Amino acid sequence: MTTSNRNVVSTLGADGKLTVELVEEEITDPVGHEVLIRIDGAAINPSDLGLMFGPALLEQAEFSPGKIVAPMPEAAAKALSGRVGDAIRIGNEGAGTVIAAGEEPEAQALLGKRVSGRPGGLFSNYRIADARTCLELPDDLPIESAAASFVNPMTAVCFVETMRQEGFKGLVHTVAASNLGQMLAKLCKEEGVPLVNIVRKQEQADILRSIGTEHIVDSSQEDFNARLIDAIDATGALLAFDAIGGGNMASRVLSAMDAVCMKGTAYNRYGSEEMKKVYVYGTLDFGPTILDRSFGFTWNVSGWLVMRYFMSLPKDRQDWVQERIIKGLRSTTLASKFKHRIGLDELFERDVALACNAKTTGEKYLLIPNG
Amino acid sequence: MTTSNRNVVSTLGADGKLTVELVEEEITDPVGHEVLIRIDGAAINPSDLGLMFGPALLEQAEFSPGKIVAPMPEAAAKALSGRVGDAIRIGNEGAGTVIAAGEEPEAQALLGKRVSGRPGGLFSNYRIADARTCLELPDDLPIESAAASFVNPMTAVCFVETMRQEGFKGLVHTVAASNLGQMLAKLCKEEGVPLVNIVRKQEQADILRSIGTEHIVDSSQEDFNARLIDAIDATGALLAFDAIGGGNMASRVLSAMDAVCMKGTAYNRYGSEEMKKVYVYGTLDFGPTILDRSFGFTWNVSGWLVMRYFMSLPKDRQDWVQERIIKGLRSTTLASKFKHRIGLDELFERDVALACNAKTTGEKYLLIPNG
Repeated sequence: MTTSNRNVVSTLGADGKLTVELVEEEITDPVGHEVLIRIDGAAINPSDLGLMFGPALLEQAEFSPGKIVAPMPEAAAKALSGRVGDAIRIGNEGAGTVIAAGEEPEAQALLGKRVSGRPGGLFSNYRIADARTCLELPDDLPIESAAASFVNPMTAVCFVETMRQEGFKGLVHTVAASNLGQMLAKLCKEEGVPLVNIVRKQEQADILRSIGTEHIVDSSQEDFNARLIDAIDATGALLAFDAIGGGNMASRVLSAMDAVCMKGTAYNRYGSEEMKKVYVYGTLDFGPTILDRSFGFTWNVSGWLVMRYFMSLPKDRQDWVQERIIKGLRSTTLASKFKHRIGLDELFERDVALACNAKTTGEKYLLIPNG
Repeated sequence: MTTSNRNVVSTLGADGKLTVELVEEEITDPVGHEVLIRIDGAAINPSDLGLMFGPALLEQAEFSPGKIVAPMPEAAAKALSGRVGDAIRIGNEGAGTVIAAGEEPEAQALLGKRVSGRPGGLFSNYRIADARTCLELPDDLPIESAAASFVNPMTAVCFVETMRQEGFKGLVHTVAASNLGQMLAKLCKEEGVPLVNIVRKQEQADILRSIGTEHIVDSSQEDFNARLIDAIDATGALLAFDAIGGGNMASRVLSAMDAVCMKGTAYNRYGSEEMKKVYVYGTLDFGPTILDRSFGFTWNVSGWLVMRYFMSLPKDRQDWVQERIIKGLRSTTLASKFKHRIGLDELFERDVALACNAKTTGEKYLLIPNG
């Protein structure tokens, strides 16, 4: 038996053009540990948009039903030459119902249950996953939380876990009003973790204030640096997570941390001795990261990927992360909100694709493939 | 009793002007664990020049006997505001003869011996140091090696120690023809450590080739990136030490490392899973570090300071580092060469100060304060 399926696939051509299309296929029935999931909802996250559209010039694309063909800036096409010709399935997270299962007991046990999985390619009607990598979700969880139970909740919980593992006392988050940022603010409050929240406009500060967040610093204000120093001083936060990537935010954060550490000590051209660290976990700005090194020599800027981090944890810490996610989803601390719901076909409409790809705060899209 | 002394002091004024001058003082006799060292020679290293002159506009300075007053670019003066008014003694490394000692046995034991120490301020006729932090040197060591027994040799040995401690298999060095770079090349050969040597012109490549160095890559050549990839592939070097600081060298090295790690694997937008790391240990270029992040998410760029690193090592590894330094100084592997010898007064002559501050490869200066 097979099941007819449509899935969103992104391919970069040798001509530098990016094609995103709905591809039809037949899925064969699950065997062994496999389960067949009917996708009930999939979150459209910046990481999905990055893989699906990346730096393509979507404004100049040709749109037709189930197909978008967009030119790519030459430098970007060159940088992405490694993916030329690869048909990449899109969709990092989502939840669905197990409608068929292989013969192994782990697979059979999930029949009829709602699960989230991480096989990739979840912008589909159906998807095969390994039952042993699925997270069984409570039946009464709203689809919004279920569909976004993986990327953002796991990222927020793993920020806290990283901080504790490395012995830091507080966190700085550079995109604090994002969906993830709001989750992190609530999580840090519950976990007693001091958090400095950097936003880039007043409305974003208001959003955070409305959920009871302290230490909000607006980078659009003239006194940003001074306030950032005050907030880091008040929290002792010497570990930052940055999703902007490009520009000088990481550098400014490190300078503020160094200024706090140097307070009341004699001049030292090598900067303060405390470790000051920024993890870059996203690429909202594709430009280069610019470090002015006005923060001495004891600093560290690193890439950070939630799955690589999670997989590096010992089993007992992985279990804690997963339990903390379920607890947070139930209490709404880690629950997501979506402004828009769209079907698979709508994703290929010009207005929807552009709005979705703008990644505007508070404008998240939920994909309902079988709606 | 006191001893008349002159020492080189650098002070940044509130007006943004940098004053470097020979200051006279009386040194009181050593007590307790102290020894009084008559300085026989002190190496003038980039780290000394950085502290003494930094980004000051030396070309526009006023020179008078024993005094230089130089304007500072406004941005630099602002960045260095933490040192305004501090009279900073210059001279990180040097060797001398102990001519007086406190009453403690550790101090008495060094009377008449040649030692190197790290009290700072060694661009002086005399200096007090704690006997317990002095390294006793063999009597027959030439003054050039003795005077430079600390910064470069310890840095080279600690590069190798860092590599082993962190589990890397080889090193990349971005200023390979420097005095330190040549030491490192010889040390790595003896220690069996694969080393990629980046130089920026043909003459530098020739210097390294003349001492039997493999894997030399010239950044001024058009095929630099391709050759860098080949050299990293051949050596497996995924840890780099960079003394340039500004510009995109760290970024280019990380991209080459990622390209090597991705060879023969499928496209992965998150880059290769192996850790790729650059330590920035110097500031030959005061401009910002520019990372284009074309190397995925598993990377790390950190500041690195030899003394902070050395002090973080367990005692047995510190002992190994020190023994390896003495061995290398004796065998000339870690011995330094100087092109010029100058006295304290000459340092304040316009031509000498400018030539010295140019940090030209092969043009190192040795200070002989009592010559």
